[in-house]
Amino acid sequence: MAPNISEKNPVTLLGLGAMGTALARTWLAAGHPLTVWNRTPARAEALAAEGAEVADSAAAAVAANPLVVVCLLDDASVEEVLGGTDLAGRDLVNLTTSNPAQARARAEWARERGARYLDAGIMAVPPMIGVPEAGGYAFYSGSRELFEQHQETLAVPMGTTYVGEDAGFAALYDVALLSAMYGMFAGVSHAFALIRKEDIDPTAFAPLLADWVVAMAQPAVHQTADHLRSGDYTTNVVSNLAMQVAGVPTFLGTAEQQGVSPELLAPFFELMRRRLAEGNGEEDLTGVIDLLAR
Amino acid sequence: MAPNISEKNPVTLLGLGAMGTALARTWLAAGHPLTVWNRTPARAEALAAEGAEVADSAAAAVAANPLVVVCLLDDASVEEVLGGTDLAGRDLVNLTTSNPAQARARAEWARERGARYLDAGIMAVPPMIGVPEAGGYAFYSGSRELFEQHQETLAVPMGTTYVGEDAGFAALYDVALLSAMYGMFAGVSHAFALIRKEDIDPTAFAPLLADWVVAMAQPAVHQTADHLRSGDYTTNVVSNLAMQVAGVPTFLGTAEQQGVSPELLAPFFELMRRRLAEGNGEEDLTGVIDLLAR
Repeated sequence: MAPNISEKNPVTLLGLGAMGTALARTWLAAGHPLTVWNRTPARAEALAAEGAEVADSAAAAVAANPLVVVCLLDDASVEEVLGGTDLAGRDLVNLTTSNPAQARARAEWARERGARYLDAGIMAVPPMIGVPEAGGYAFYSGSRELFEQHQETLAVPMGTTYVGEDAGFAALYDVALLSAMYGMFAGVSHAFALIRKEDIDPTAFAPLLADWVVAMAQPAVHQTADHLRSGDYTTNVVSNLAMQVAGVPTFLGTAEQQGVSPELLAPFFELMRRRLAEGNGEEDLTGVIDLLAR
Repeated sequence: MAPNISEKNPVTLLGLGAMGTALARTWLAAGHPLTVWNRTPARAEALAAEGAEVADSAAAAVAANPLVVVCLLDDASVEEVLGGTDLAGRDLVNLTTSNPAQARARAEWARERGARYLDAGIMAVPPMIGVPEAGGYAFYSGSRELFEQHQETLAVPMGTTYVGEDAGFAALYDVALLSAMYGMFAGVSHAFALIRKEDIDPTAFAPLLADWVVAMAQPAVHQTADHLRSGDYTTNVVSNLAMQVAGVPTFLGTAEQQGVSPELLAPFFELMRRRLAEGNGEEDLTGVIDLLAR
């Protein structure tokens, strides 16, 4: 093995799927000594030609460097791959998709094995890795010391946003943002379905739709946050719940006329109606959140 | 009655709710002679002090000017208010909230009475009226001649976007954009519900959430439109349907852990699963639209 002559922080990376491979390439390109391991060796061999050390085993990879990054299929894979390795004294950064409970349990599991632990939720797809202008980033939570010590290295492939000592927060923020995105996708799908059978070019309709969603998102999200924080859902309300519920038949009627199932929007309208029925007609829509959390 | 010495196009406006009153004030401020009528006269009297002529009846208001704008409670109110008036030779612009079928029927109804007809869907709330930087506008559809003749007058309170001769299109575009907005609101509500019981300041979370939704909306809407136009849902797909369906348990598991009902997102995930089950794992999410339109 060649001596490490780089001044850059060496990294061990386990897991060379599309995301892991993209991460590996940015660290190599930035001059970080990189040791990789993958269950199927072919992907590791491709990176060897680009300067990566290829470890024979997960245990050897973990032993190679203090900073150990894992980017595997799922939480069960993390246990399987790292189970036979010595994590004592390691800084373990887990970029594997997890839910908050899995992340918290994995943090405890790592602590018991003598490792510091940082969990991550990646807000990017592989083509955004190493492309700062693409705006990709990862949420990190868990050991603040680990994060601060390695932030510069972690910032090579994508932006970093530390969200707290609770190891579950990175996954929670990740899931929350992606959940909101799927809601937006659902609304956009319904909108396109409504115009589908008309003589309307979807690519001419698209900028109107995208600009509207963008224009509405910023003020709505910030007002909702202000209302949740104050507990008063009636300040600065322009179109109140009573007025918005009055508009629901227009939405459902239009869907029916256009032959579009209302299934993606009906649950939200139903919660609006329930909140109104509870006597909250002067609020905005924030009260729906109270009905969602059981 | 004072002689009309303005060079500006005179306008008749029926309906002085919050929106109608806001419209009236912008026309008055811009120097347009304005004749108003409202079922309850108090709101009209307030505008008289600002220079509006107050008509004694809807019929008198309609008779006063060639351009007749109505902004009433609903489509039934339009028939009720205009039913006893002489619309022959009038240019009727209907800003009342309608669904596409109502708008098309109202266009035919106006044609039978000798009026040109333009329907509108207002993408603004009253505080945005007369405030160009607020970005409010209205979709217009129906008589192109009427629109072109009066566009300058119609553009006084808010921007104008003409979307076709089909009188139902303005309402359809309006409902489609607002439907997408409600989907976005549903996703945002779910996201806030997920963090609700944690020690997370919603106003610190808000910019992350809003920026993510905004960043995802533009490319998603444009790619969906391109796919609908081409009929090929597999080009430029970064995260395909199979991968996204694989992530669904993380979303549902996190909701369960946080005590949040999945009801707002579950229908979209179910359509994703159905589309995957039909063998479309290499697509993006555009295929959901095919399942929505019955």
